[in-house]
Amino acid sequence: MPERTRVVVIGAGPAGLLLSHLLDRFGIESIVIDSRTREQIETTIRAGILEQGTVEILTDTRASDRVLTVGQKHEGIELRFAGEGHRIDFADTVGRAVWLYPQHEVLKDLVAARLAAGQDLRFGVTAERVEDAGTSRPRIVAKDAEGNPVEIEADVVVGADGSRSVVREAVTGTYGGYFREYPFAWFGILCEAPPSSPELIYSNSPDGFALISQRSPGVQRMYFQCAPDTDTEAYTEEQLWEILQARVPGTTLNEGHIFQRDVLRFRSFVAHEMRRGRVVLVGDAAHTVPPTGAKGMNLAVADVVLLTEALRALLLDHDETLLDAYPEIARRRIWKAQHFSWWMTNMLHLQPGASDFDRMRQIGELRTIVESHAGRAYLAEAYTGWQFEGGLPGVK
Amino acid sequence: MPERTRVVVIGAGPAGLLLSHLLDRFGIESIVIDSRTREQIETTIRAGILEQGTVEILTDTRASDRVLTVGQKHEGIELRFAGEGHRIDFADTVGRAVWLYPQHEVLKDLVAARLAAGQDLRFGVTAERVEDAGTSRPRIVAKDAEGNPVEIEADVVVGADGSRSVVREAVTGTYGGYFREYPFAWFGILCEAPPSSPELIYSNSPDGFALISQRSPGVQRMYFQCAPDTDTEAYTEEQLWEILQARVPGTTLNEGHIFQRDVLRFRSFVAHEMRRGRVVLVGDAAHTVPPTGAKGMNLAVADVVLLTEALRALLLDHDETLLDAYPEIARRRIWKAQHFSWWMTNMLHLQPGASDFDRMRQIGELRTIVESHAGRAYLAEAYTGWQFEGGLPGVK
Repeated sequence: MPERTRVVVIGAGPAGLLLSHLLDRFGIESIVIDSRTREQIETTIRAGILEQGTVEILTDTRASDRVLTVGQKHEGIELRFAGEGHRIDFADTVGRAVWLYPQHEVLKDLVAARLAAGQDLRFGVTAERVEDAGTSRPRIVAKDAEGNPVEIEADVVVGADGSRSVVREAVTGTYGGYFREYPFAWFGILCEAPPSSPELIYSNSPDGFALISQRSPGVQRMYFQCAPDTDTEAYTEEQLWEILQARVPGTTLNEGHIFQRDVLRFRSFVAHEMRRGRVVLVGDAAHTVPPTGAKGMNLAVADVVLLTEALRALLLDHDETLLDAYPEIARRRIWKAQHFSWWMTNMLHLQPGASDFDRMRQIGELRTIVESHAGRAYLAEAYTGWQFEGGLPGVK
Repeated sequence: MPERTRVVVIGAGPAGLLLSHLLDRFGIESIVIDSRTREQIETTIRAGILEQGTVEILTDTRASDRVLTVGQKHEGIELRFAGEGHRIDFADTVGRAVWLYPQHEVLKDLVAARLAAGQDLRFGVTAERVEDAGTSRPRIVAKDAEGNPVEIEADVVVGADGSRSVVREAVTGTYGGYFREYPFAWFGILCEAPPSSPELIYSNSPDGFALISQRSPGVQRMYFQCAPDTDTEAYTEEQLWEILQARVPGTTLNEGHIFQRDVLRFRSFVAHEMRRGRVVLVGDAAHTVPPTGAKGMNLAVADVVLLTEALRALLLDHDETLLDAYPEIARRRIWKAQHFSWWMTNMLHLQPGASDFDRMRQIGELRTIVESHAGRAYLAEAYTGWQFEGGLPGVK
């Protein structure tokens, strides 16, 4: 006999944990499972730029207070090109901000908050498939860390299990989606040194893109555009500093021991469907963006905000209207974010095979942004995040 | 012995005629030559959207009063996609406007004004080459309509002779420039019927782009995206109306006799150099844009505004600083306009070979514009024209 709950959530990433947190505020019971251990979840290095709306939902619902104390509020970024730096002032243009707070810190906060609230949260449980997807009692079939079968039946199954989602197949078939690959990747490093710049620098240089970011007062995160097949050990530390420094002329980078390296592939994906009956997708399970726009986690949070309202209406009021509308409303934001991520990527990166015309046009484009209040506001609005549809669930 | 003047201008298009008009305001003598007859110049059909700054320079310097009485002020355009129409309100976003006033009407006004002022303006005189381009007394070698040689020596030779400029070779060598071609063209028609819509409609439809424009209260100008090798006689009138109507669902087009058809090629070009010593290029001789952004004539006017100040400083104050700076200052606007024209083209047209992802991203992009005040302002600012550098010459 399978266990029973109202909502079973596959994936204890930001989307799954936040959903269980918000559902709990309405008294809706859920079980969250994840194939990884708690330690794996809390130590995976991911991007960490939170839109203002993401921070509001985390703090207003008491999912995380640390984002405001440990996280860094940023009210602008710098765009650098043609030897000049230009600040995009978020406060001046849209009156909003972003917070630098790494995703694994968000996860630590969410895991702690869920466990403290008595959430049924199971690590090391691997979902294998969804059964009875077309019915009103779908069921997840899984195995625990010892290989014992686990079956959970629920009113709703939510796939929050990332870009290699097992749940997606039940919704949309194998990889049924819109897809785009890019001819470059990011080489990322973490190093022991204080920030080289108070705000992030997005640099379009003749050698290619670089992003000078930061992780904490003593650790910097930096990236530079590289070929997709680049090996993480292809460069010595000295070579890495030479490459990075050459891409931000005019700024002297604070160097320090490089203790982590990774290569991030660039792809865009949107699933053709986000829902089949009582099986629903959120976050990376439904869409992936290249990292340039810092939209990945924020888009997952926007999905969860919408879905929470839809599940509340379904499970408490027996009203399925919002769940019916969920895919279409979510997709509006998803495609805007897909565009923004594509746009930032294309405006800032050196395209293999770009003509001289393309290169000059790119500089012209950057000028239409930085030399114009409207241009800066257009970028700042997307970067700090469009307003959530319908406000924050359970928060007045 | 060659004739002598201060400035010899090759080309009696908007750029050349306006330059002679503005120079005259400073008492600087010029000769303008053009290979075409006056009638040819005054009847060639060209686009007719004038930026606010273009209208101001024409009216403030008394080059044309008719633009305000015969021309139509437009304070917005409509972007149509995914079955919805969205107005971009210029007045609300940037407090500016454009005027619909066909280029050949501008030319009639300018020709009349120059002749009334006693301008030495010679039709049917074909420039063959520039001699002594590197000296302080360059010379144009030409032939008049009867084949008699004409030679004019001047302090400055200005190439305002369009995209097939003869002067350009003396500045930059044959076709030395940044270049881009597009895999589509516009099929344009003129028809006898009143406007189908009070403002222009730019439509991104599944079948491709269409622009519903107007020429006068009784004549409409319309365009639709077609293959570059399309023959103007490829369609019957009935077929043309079917194609156009299918691309603007929701609007009933006013049909009428189609009395002119043309196919406009799309290309982008920027000359590597705009000046060699005392030989200077303006307008289409230096750059070409695809028609989507309506920037061609306006960009020529912006060049002329800059060059007038530069020639005034050189010829009246013996100060060459502004002429030295002319190419770089002009190029900033040129590349912004190149970007805008490329952007409007790419956002609105169906790209041959576009993936489903590209198509959905395009709709997402259009939403980032129409759903945002900043997005609408960013588009409106470019469409109505960035402010001229340094204001209007000779106008306080």
